[in-house]
Amino acid sequence: MIKTRDLGEKELLARIRPFCSDRLGDDCAVMGATSLAQQMVITTDMLIDGVHFSDRTTSPEDTGWRAAAANLSDLAAMGALPWGLVIAVGLPPDTPVSWLEGVYCGFKACLDCYGQGAEIVGGDLVRSPVRTLAVTAFGQVEKSRLIQRDTAQVGDLILITGSHGRSKAGLELLLNPELIAKLNGFSPVSFYQAHQRPIPRFDVLPLIAQGQSVSGMDSSDGLADAMLQISKASKVGAKIYWDAIPIPPGLELLAGEHLWNWILYGGEDFELVLTLAAESAQTLCQALPGSAIIGEIILDDSSDRIEGLADHRTFQHFS
Amino acid sequence: MIKTRDLGEKELLARIRPFCSDRLGDDCAVMGATSLAQQMVITTDMLIDGVHFSDRTTSPEDTGWRAAAANLSDLAAMGALPWGLVIAVGLPPDTPVSWLEGVYCGFKACLDCYGQGAEIVGGDLVRSPVRTLAVTAFGQVEKSRLIQRDTAQVGDLILITGSHGRSKAGLELLLNPELIAKLNGFSPVSFYQAHQRPIPRFDVLPLIAQGQSVSGMDSSDGLADAMLQISKASKVGAKIYWDAIPIPPGLELLAGEHLWNWILYGGEDFELVLTLAAESAQTLCQALPGSAIIGEIILDDSSDRIEGLADHRTFQHFS
Repeated sequence: MIKTRDLGEKELLARIRPFCSDRLGDDCAVMGATSLAQQMVITTDMLIDGVHFSDRTTSPEDTGWRAAAANLSDLAAMGALPWGLVIAVGLPPDTPVSWLEGVYCGFKACLDCYGQGAEIVGGDLVRSPVRTLAVTAFGQVEKSRLIQRDTAQVGDLILITGSHGRSKAGLELLLNPELIAKLNGFSPVSFYQAHQRPIPRFDVLPLIAQGQSVSGMDSSDGLADAMLQISKASKVGAKIYWDAIPIPPGLELLAGEHLWNWILYGGEDFELVLTLAAESAQTLCQALPGSAIIGEIILDDSSDRIEGLADHRTFQHFS
Repeated sequence: MIKTRDLGEKELLARIRPFCSDRLGDDCAVMGATSLAQQMVITTDMLIDGVHFSDRTTSPEDTGWRAAAANLSDLAAMGALPWGLVIAVGLPPDTPVSWLEGVYCGFKACLDCYGQGAEIVGGDLVRSPVRTLAVTAFGQVEKSRLIQRDTAQVGDLILITGSHGRSKAGLELLLNPELIAKLNGFSPVSFYQAHQRPIPRFDVLPLIAQGQSVSGMDSSDGLADAMLQISKASKVGAKIYWDAIPIPPGLELLAGEHLWNWILYGGEDFELVLTLAAESAQTLCQALPGSAIIGEIILDDSSDRIEGLADHRTFQHFS
């Protein structure tokens, strides 16, 4: 009998795809119009104790914040603003009530940064052998501002809204506090924050001028994965300006030989990876401190979509 | 330290209520207008192996069907038609792929009964120590047809769209097959079906004439709970016509002394419990085979909201 561990996540998703609607997206579904000008988008995430969060690395408040931020980031990556979230929680009966309250407190603290639509509008609370959170977020986007991953054009530049590898660095520091010595006095706070309190990049959206053709997604599964997903979905290739990829201050000290592994595959930095026409990309890059243009979209070379990215390893949920 | 087991579900919900939006409903949230005439409603449920489903009583297909039906029933109870569903799944790595496919197959089989909006539009698939499903369903309802539980009026009659205790009977038969002898040759199939393949009551909605004042909810947590919730939310009491509550054929043989316990507290029959003005209730009752008028809304008597319902026990997730 084939077990889920025998198949990668993508093969498993392919098995269940036939049961799903044509409206299904990869991380977000475009739900249809809520008005002539507006689209609704939806995203959902399940988070499991010991897999996606842990008392070792995240307080209950951090766990709630991260659950909210991960879903809000999926909305931001579609160009959408939040319209409401629901959160279902499964708990063992011996869970401290303070843990549950902490999760909600952190969840709400993240939402409170993003205005009236970012509210908890529903939920469920059940008994489970393992602490489990399931979040669904709804957003709204003007049709002309919807960002999808399958519209990258040859000649577009690739822009990232911030540096990568910070969340992974934070996780490693939390799991192995002795690593702090490697930082030579450089503060680890930005790494902890990147892991425990990631920021969905709604701030980027108003900077993208109306009518621009932009494709993209967030880098929650890693920078390399985002570039690959956009390339595959858009049936194009990408040439990467390797020297232009920003290296966060202190990361090289900490990561050593793992530096590029953390930057490309670390995941959970929740930046946006966008492709835009050259002039638009340069305008956005100038307006957005910390952003960088790291490559360009080229004709598809299916043998090696991302030039120089020899290793296509990505986080596999079922490995 | 207070553990979640030390508090009932209602107390736990009260603890997290301050973190939630005023838009939060009890089982469904009313999300705001999608157009001048339409409201969007949202509901979410988490289902855990060993708590809400089990290989002992439900095939993977049944588990998927029940997950879909429970959420669709919440929409129907608001008067809404489905607009899309997302399903997140957590699985141990040794889960047979056929189990996952079976769940999706059953989920879709249920959705396929309810038209174009009843589609899977998103999801997530993660590793978890315990099989877990989290479903969120979105629906749309004309504002004038929205059904809520807090609008019951003194003088309304209480109508149920079908009989109760059947799902509980099915569960007991599946757990204890030897009970079949009690049925004296009466077929157990309707009980198995009630438990494994419940039917959300969208068929009721077109029978409710436009402009009628109707309150209500579904009976997923039991008939007694539904009557209590409506009474409390509407700040009214209820006089029950105990002799008018339908007893499903064969149930008395099976349940014996537990008959009224199963009918009132069994749960998961997914019927609608509605209150309407007398004439409207009678018209609906005549149009809907299997339905029954089982009581009337009276002035609040807070010491005993439901006359004759001495025992207010309901299913406690955290007991």
